[in-house]
Amino acid sequence: MSNEFDIIKKYFSEFPQRSDVILGVGDDAAILQPPKGHDLVITTDTLISGVHFPEQTSAESIGHKSLAVNLSDLAAMGAKPLWFTLALTLPEADSEWLSDFSQGLKNLAARYQVALVGGDTTRGPLSITIQACGSVPEGRAVRRSGASPGDDIYVTGTLGDAGFGLASVQGKIKLSDADRIFCERKLNHPEPRVSAGMGLLTLATAMIDCSDGFAADLGHILEQSKNGAEVQIKKLPLSTPVKNALEKQNDYSFPLAAGDDFELIFTASPESRNEIAALEDVLDCSITWVGKITQKPGLLLREKSGELYNLKKTGYQHFE
Amino acid sequence: MSNEFDIIKKYFSEFPQRSDVILGVGDDAAILQPPKGHDLVITTDTLISGVHFPEQTSAESIGHKSLAVNLSDLAAMGAKPLWFTLALTLPEADSEWLSDFSQGLKNLAARYQVALVGGDTTRGPLSITIQACGSVPEGRAVRRSGASPGDDIYVTGTLGDAGFGLASVQGKIKLSDADRIFCERKLNHPEPRVSAGMGLLTLATAMIDCSDGFAADLGHILEQSKNGAEVQIKKLPLSTPVKNALEKQNDYSFPLAAGDDFELIFTASPESRNEIAALEDVLDCSITWVGKITQKPGLLLREKSGELYNLKKTGYQHFE
Repeated sequence: MSNEFDIIKKYFSEFPQRSDVILGVGDDAAILQPPKGHDLVITTDTLISGVHFPEQTSAESIGHKSLAVNLSDLAAMGAKPLWFTLALTLPEADSEWLSDFSQGLKNLAARYQVALVGGDTTRGPLSITIQACGSVPEGRAVRRSGASPGDDIYVTGTLGDAGFGLASVQGKIKLSDADRIFCERKLNHPEPRVSAGMGLLTLATAMIDCSDGFAADLGHILEQSKNGAEVQIKKLPLSTPVKNALEKQNDYSFPLAAGDDFELIFTASPESRNEIAALEDVLDCSITWVGKITQKPGLLLREKSGELYNLKKTGYQHFE
Repeated sequence: MSNEFDIIKKYFSEFPQRSDVILGVGDDAAILQPPKGHDLVITTDTLISGVHFPEQTSAESIGHKSLAVNLSDLAAMGAKPLWFTLALTLPEADSEWLSDFSQGLKNLAARYQVALVGGDTTRGPLSITIQACGSVPEGRAVRRSGASPGDDIYVTGTLGDAGFGLASVQGKIKLSDADRIFCERKLNHPEPRVSAGMGLLTLATAMIDCSDGFAADLGHILEQSKNGAEVQIKKLPLSTPVKNALEKQNDYSFPLAAGDDFELIFTASPESRNEIAALEDVLDCSITWVGKITQKPGLLLREKSGELYNLKKTGYQHFE
C-alpha cells in the first residue's frame, strides 16, 4: 500500500534496540551480527483471523500472540530470542487497530529484548506472519528427538485453559465471569516460556511447545525419539477452572487434546530432578512431572489406580 | 490445517541441502550455523493474489516470484543467499497447484543453493510470505546510504518490461505475441540479480533493488545518501518492445515509474568503471551507466539535448 513506510515508521519505530542489529528496518534488508560460538534457531508462524484467533480478538492480543507463538517455538529449542521480522496484511490502515496491535507486540518484544528488524505491510485479509531468530551455544539446541526410555516427562504451567477459553468464546461452554476472563486470557495472551526454555537448555533431553494439544505434541517427541510414554493423567497440571469442570466427569479431553496452551513439554533424565526443582523456584511458572518415557512405542494414559484412561471416547483417536 | 505436515513433506522435501543447516524442517525451529566472520542479512516479503501478481498467474510463476523478490532484496545488499522460510496460506490443498508452486520455488532455490529451513501452512486467502537470510563479510553489506556526489549511477538489465507486462495482462496496452510473452515473463518470472549483487559487494557505494520503479527507488538512495542525481533518460536501458513503444512518443513513464522490474540500481566511484565493465562480462545481465550523483538534492531527468524531461506530465509527481 502506498503509505506502507509511514505506517511502519509511525507504529513500529520504538521497539527494543540491540547492539547486534547493525542496521534495522529501512534498507533492502537488515544487517545483523550473529553471536560468536552460537547456532541460530529460526522459526516462522502465521496467524489468520478466524483460524488462529477468534475474529473479535483485540488488536493488542493479536499483536501479543503473533510474537508469542514464535517465541514459544524458540523456547522449545532452549534458545535466547534475538530478532524478528513482521509481515502484516491488513484490510485497511486503521490507526487505532495499528496502535493497539503494535503495543501488544512491543510489550512482549520489550520483555525479552527482541528487536524488530524487518517488515512488509500489504493490503488484504488480516494475516500476520512473524519469523523469529534466536541463538543457542553451538550444538546445544534441544530437539524433539532426544528422549530416552526412563526419562521423566514434565510440562510447564497448566493445560487446557486455552481450549476452555476458545470453547467459552464460541459459546460451547458457560464459565463464571472470573473463570471466563482467566481462560480467555490464556487463549489470547499465551505466555511464551522463554525463561523456562533457556533454563532447560542443559537439562531437557527433548522439548516441544504445546500448540496442537498435549497428547499430539508429546506424540511428536515420541515419534522423533522413537519410543513411547506412560502419563499419569491425575498428575496433569490443571488450573482451578479446568480442574473443577473436568474432574467431576473424569473427562480429560481438554488438557490432553485442546491446543494453543503454548506450554513446554519436555523430557529429562531422573538425575536432573533436583536441578529442575531448583529451576522451577526461579521461574514464574510451575514445572510438573507427568510421566515417564518407555521403550515400548505408543502413549499410555493411566488413572491413579493404574487402569488405562481411554481418550478415544472423547473423539480423539490419534494415540492409544 | 490437519494435513499441514503431509503437505510440507510431500511438496517441499526435495529442496537444496546445505551443510550449514544442522536441522531443517520438522522440529519447533531450524538449527543453522552462521558463517564465521560474516554478518547476516535478513528480509521478508509477502505476495498476495491480485495485489502482487494477477489472479490468473500460474502457480509455478508464483512460486518463483515469491522467492525471487526476497533474493532480490538480499542481492541489493551484496549478500550471498543461504536459507529461507515459507509461510503459505492457501484456500485449499490443491495438489496440482502445490506441485507447480513448489517446482517454481525449488528451481530458483536450486540455482542459488538456498535451503528451505522452515515453514507454516495455513488455510485462508492465497498469500505467501518468505523470509530470506544471507551473509556478507563482516561490515561489508551495501546500504542505500553510501552514495557520494560524483558517483556514477548504474542499472542492471532493462527497465519497464514488467510494467508493460502488467499493462498487457490488464488489457491496457496491446502488444505483439512475442512482445507480450517477453514482457509478461519479466513480470511473472523476475530474475533476482544475485550474482550481480555479490559481484558488486566491493564496488557499489549504494544499492537498491528496483521494485517501486526506477525514479522512486533511486529516490530512496538519494534520500538516505542525502544527495541528488542527474539521469540521462536516453541512457535508460530498454528492451526492444519497450523502446519501440515509448521512444516514438518520448514517454518514459514505464521505465521511470513502473514497478516490479527487480533490477539493481547502484552507485559507484568513477574509479571503478573498469572493474564494473569486467564484472558485466561475466554476468548474464547488462550493466548500464545512466547518470551521476549530485550534491544538490532532487532528481533531474535530462534529455540528450540537456533539456529537462518532465515526468510530471505522466501523472507521477514524486520527484522533479
